[in-house]
Amino acid sequence: MNPHLAEIPPSLIRAINARKRPGDIDLGLGEPTLRPNPRPLEEALEWVRENGCPYSPNAGFPELREAIVARYGMPGMSACVTVGSEEALYLSVKTLLDPARDEVLIPEPCYPAYPKICTLEGVRSRTVGFDAESGFAPRAEVVLEALGPDTRLLILASPANPTGRVWPEGELRALAAGLSERQGPPVWVLSDEVYRELFYTPEAPLSLAQLYPHTVMAGSLSKSCALTGLRLGWLIGPAEVITRAVTAHGLLNTAAGTIGQRAALAVFREPALLEEHRPLYAARRRVLLHAAEEYGVHLVAPEGAFYAMVHLPRERAAERLLEEHRVVTVPGHAFGSSADGWLRVSWVAPNAALVEGLRRIGEFGSEIDAIVLPLS
Amino acid sequence: MNPHLAEIPPSLIRAINARKRPGDIDLGLGEPTLRPNPRPLEEALEWVRENGCPYSPNAGFPELREAIVARYGMPGMSACVTVGSEEALYLSVKTLLDPARDEVLIPEPCYPAYPKICTLEGVRSRTVGFDAESGFAPRAEVVLEALGPDTRLLILASPANPTGRVWPEGELRALAAGLSERQGPPVWVLSDEVYRELFYTPEAPLSLAQLYPHTVMAGSLSKSCALTGLRLGWLIGPAEVITRAVTAHGLLNTAAGTIGQRAALAVFREPALLEEHRPLYAARRRVLLHAAEEYGVHLVAPEGAFYAMVHLPRERAAERLLEEHRVVTVPGHAFGSSADGWLRVSWVAPNAALVEGLRRIGEFGSEIDAIVLPLS
Repeated sequence: MNPHLAEIPPSLIRAINARKRPGDIDLGLGEPTLRPNPRPLEEALEWVRENGCPYSPNAGFPELREAIVARYGMPGMSACVTVGSEEALYLSVKTLLDPARDEVLIPEPCYPAYPKICTLEGVRSRTVGFDAESGFAPRAEVVLEALGPDTRLLILASPANPTGRVWPEGELRALAAGLSERQGPPVWVLSDEVYRELFYTPEAPLSLAQLYPHTVMAGSLSKSCALTGLRLGWLIGPAEVITRAVTAHGLLNTAAGTIGQRAALAVFREPALLEEHRPLYAARRRVLLHAAEEYGVHLVAPEGAFYAMVHLPRERAAERLLEEHRVVTVPGHAFGSSADGWLRVSWVAPNAALVEGLRRIGEFGSEIDAIVLPLS
Repeated sequence: MNPHLAEIPPSLIRAINARKRPGDIDLGLGEPTLRPNPRPLEEALEWVRENGCPYSPNAGFPELREAIVARYGMPGMSACVTVGSEEALYLSVKTLLDPARDEVLIPEPCYPAYPKICTLEGVRSRTVGFDAESGFAPRAEVVLEALGPDTRLLILASPANPTGRVWPEGELRALAAGLSERQGPPVWVLSDEVYRELFYTPEAPLSLAQLYPHTVMAGSLSKSCALTGLRLGWLIGPAEVITRAVTAHGLLNTAAGTIGQRAALAVFREPALLEEHRPLYAARRRVLLHAAEEYGVHLVAPEGAFYAMVHLPRERAAERLLEEHRVVTVPGHAFGSSADGWLRVSWVAPNAALVEGLRRIGEFGSEIDAIVLPLS
């Protein structure tokens, strides 16, 4: 048996979700509750009626790869169509690192799969925490100071799960400059941009790929189009990296699904579909912030994605909220020790449930002074 | 960069397919040319219209996992729904082996991905060739004698790509007995049953899982239902193995696609759909055998799948057939050195193309005496 599998800790998110009872208010979700636009799926099925359901090339249909690079990539980059952005994360670790020597650096709080993928691959990883006092604001200095001599990959997310933070342009520029100045082999950066279309800042988030050449980007239709079950994502990066990633991808699962790829082609032909849900999330975010203020819930105003970090430094807060107040949230330490004393609240729930959930959280935490950290 | 990626040889099958010109007769295909029954796909889309397209649980929808085990598994076994059987192969190597110590034994000619997956995972693998003289008939003795002290996984395929051979019951029983008698930790067997529904023997092929407990099975809808692009497969095995495989699977790609899983549920509710194409292949196989006899093509009569091995011991036979006779075939050595001097002919092409392809192969090889090896 593979000894690395035994080293992977069980999922806290799954454990808390398993304890959910009917009638509980679910602020623990990791996927949209909005319905997908059915048109791209209808078009995909129409294509299958005419053409059958054959394999695509390993890397994906060429016209889809081109559309992905045209929207999200940089000149000269290439794309591999993947089984969701999860496979793009996995392929990055699989491709870019030599497990015998290299190390991965992961700023946290972070998506728990990042360190777990490293463990599965036998790759050393280290985390460095962003400052909770600042609402987990991404800071280049924190990352640059934590780089070690063996660090060959850095995993960033912007907008980030669980913090909802977006890397601001100034910090990205400082990071790109710091990485470029380093001697020796380059530090690659995996930029997880699965929430790229869901931002509430005045400008769309910048990608590090626009500033630093040794960047690969993971993305998908899962969050922007409420198509998590489509399992349609991509890895974008320099062509020589993508060529190697495609070799691994072909042995992992041959190719992403044809129906998902045809649906994605329909989406990229009509890119407004990628942005269709953002105003709905922006409106729900206002409901969230209003309810947080009303019920005295301390949270970091999200700049992107559909999560918010809530400060609730009480023992077993998530467990007690679930047991005593019937609200599902995820304990912050599921995302790294820097988020101890915090909860991740997902605000994809319908407005009424969201408001009632915040009310109960406020009640539970009522001893603590109410502050809403501002959007930086 | 991961040094194992550089060790993986380029695909000979892809190289020869890349040289195909319009008008060439394509006997190189690895997927059905039949059209899938549209009903399961329509049902899946109907489900998505009503329910959206959410994630399934990591291991797949529970009712689908149960249906898969009910049809193909043994009591007490469990299933993980995978992204095609390719992912099931990958997960088996990933889960069952310790790369630091264990070795994989692969009888060949075999699907080229088996040794490549091992290389990608840094797992040692060795092949042992079945006897070309006997038409690559599977023999337990050949496998048992080749086991080494570190062998912890054996990869079998029945029906097999590229040989079209099925493991007969007697040989499977001898294999199970030999493996059971071995001292020390068990040798696991990965039984690749992706062609399980496409057999032309009087009885359905037996699975080693029916005889030997340390067996995991890979399967999919790809070949039986002409749904290669659906990427819907499964890994079946003892529950404790599947639990570990699901951990890896979740980090690789979260879950198999929801549309594919809903379509699979529709198929398993009406299992005749799994067998719907077999009579069509059986009829085409008769066309193949008749044309082979007529044109003096030496081939091993297939017992399953949709390939046949053609004996054509001339230098660069596949290249010359393509260049001079415009027929795409795959050189035998793509599947292992025991198949040097042979070609893999895929007989999924329409009857007219198949007959004309065989005619040209016969013309090219006309010096050699015509024999058709019997169905053993």
